[in-house]
Amino acid sequence: MQTTFEFRTDGPGLTDITAGIAAWIPPGAEGLLTLFIRHTSCSLLIQENADPDVQRDLLAWLGRFIPPSDDPAMSYLRHTAEGPDDMPAHLKAAVLPVSLQIPVQSGRMRLGTWQSVYLFEHRTRPRSREVAAHLA
Amino acid sequence: MQTTFEFRTDGPGLTDITAGIAAWIPPGAEGLLTLFIRHTSCSLLIQENADPDVQRDLLAWLGRFIPPSDDPAMSYLRHTAEGPDDMPAHLKAAVLPVSLQIPVQSGRMRLGTWQSVYLFEHRTRPRSREVAAHLA
Amino acid sequence: MQTTFEFRTDGPGLTDITAGIAAWIPPGAEGLLTLFIRHTSCSLLIQENADPDVQRDLLAWLGRFIPPSDDPAMSYLRHTAEGPDDMPAHLKAAVLPVSLQIPVQSGRMRLGTWQSVYLFEHRTRPRSREVAAHLA
Repeated sequence: MQTTFEFRTDGPGLTDITAGIAAWIPPGAEGLLTLFIRHTSCSLLIQENADPDVQRDLLAWLGRFIPPSDDPAMSYLRHTAEGPDDMPAHLKAAVLPVSLQIPVQSGRMRLGTWQSVYLFEHRTRPRSREVAAHLA
Repeated sequence: MQTTFEFRTDGPGLTDITAGIAAWIPPGAEGLLTLFIRHTSCSLLIQENADPDVQRDLLAWLGRFIPPSDDPAMSYLRHTAEGPDDMPAHLKAAVLPVSLQIPVQSGRMRLGTWQSVYLFEHRTRPRSREVAAHLA
Repeated sequence: MQTTFEFRTDGPGLTDITAGIAAWIPPGAEGLLTLFIRHTSCSLLIQENADPDVQRDLLAWLGRFIPPSDDPAMSYLRHTAEGPDDMPAHLKAAVLPVSLQIPVQSGRMRLGTWQSVYLFEHRTRPRSREVAAHLA
C-alpha cells in the first residue's frame, strides 16, 4: 500500500504531519510504515511534541551547528548560487533522516507518548514537499 | 511478527542489545528486521564492537559536540527545566537513529563482523526504555 | 529478495551506486527497498546529484566537523592505533545513515529528481565495501 503526501512549508521549522499520516493507515492494520522524503534540502524527524521550546531550541542549535553560507565560518563553501540557505540545507539533510520506519499495530503507529512525526524544512522560501509512504 | 523489548539504562552510554534481539529471531527466518525506539531522549545505533575505546571516544566526542545546557556555550537553550541533560538529549536523538533496519537471512541479522546493535542512552538518571521490533 | 553488493572505494568521498541498485530491481516490482552497509567506518547517503560542488562542500564541511584524530582539537581521542582517519570514521558513521529505505513503484525507486544513492567512504585507503539489499 503506497501513496504520496504533499505538504506546504513556509520557512525553516517543523511541521507536525502525524495526524495526516495516521488518517491514511487503515483501521486494524498490522505492519511497518515507511516515510521517505523526496528532497535533499528538508528532512523527516521524530521529536518531542509537548513543549514548543524543544522545537525552538532545536532550530536555534541547528542554525549554530550549520550556519548560513554567508556566515564567515562557512566561507569555504562553493555551492552558494541558490542562496545562503541552500548548501546548509543539504548538510542538514545529510545528518537528519531522509526516511522513517514505524511499526504499526491495530491500525496505529507505535509512537511513544512524547513522539510526533515532523517534516523539517531547511529552506527559507515557501515550498511544496512530497513524502512517499509505504505500508506493508 | 512484532514485539516490544524493555531495557534498563543507567546513565549516558551504549548498551549492547544484539544478543537479546538475535534470540527473538526464529531459526531460518528470512526478511527485514526493524527496531524502533519509543523515546525522544535516547537512540539506537550500530557501532564498532571490538575496542571499548571506540565507545569511550564516541561519548567524549558527543559530549563536546552537544554539551549540557548549563555549559556557557549552550546558554541560548530554553528547555532546561528538567535538567541540563534534557534538551541535549533531544538534540542527540535528532542526529542519531530512532530506528534501525537490518536484513535477516537464515535466521541471522546480516551485521558485519565489527557491527553490534546498541541502545544509546542520553539521560543521566536510570531509565526503562522500550524498543518496538518488527520482522517480516 | 536479497543480495549483497560489493563496491570498491578509493579514499574519502561519495560513490554514486544508484544505477547498480536500480538494475537489480525487477521490472514492475512494487515494495520497499532496504540497503544496509555492513561496516562501521563508511555510510550510505542520499544526496543532491546535480552540482559536484555539493559533494565537495559536504566533504569539506564533514572534515571540519569531525577532524582527523591527529588534529589538536581531537587530542582527547584514544582509539588512534589504526590511523588518524579511523576513529573519525566511526564518528561519521554514527551520524550518517547505516541503512536507507526507499519505496519502489513500477520497478523504480521513488527517488526525487535531485536524489541519488551514495556509498560514503570515510577511510583513507582503498577498501572493498559490502551493501546488503532487501526488497519486499
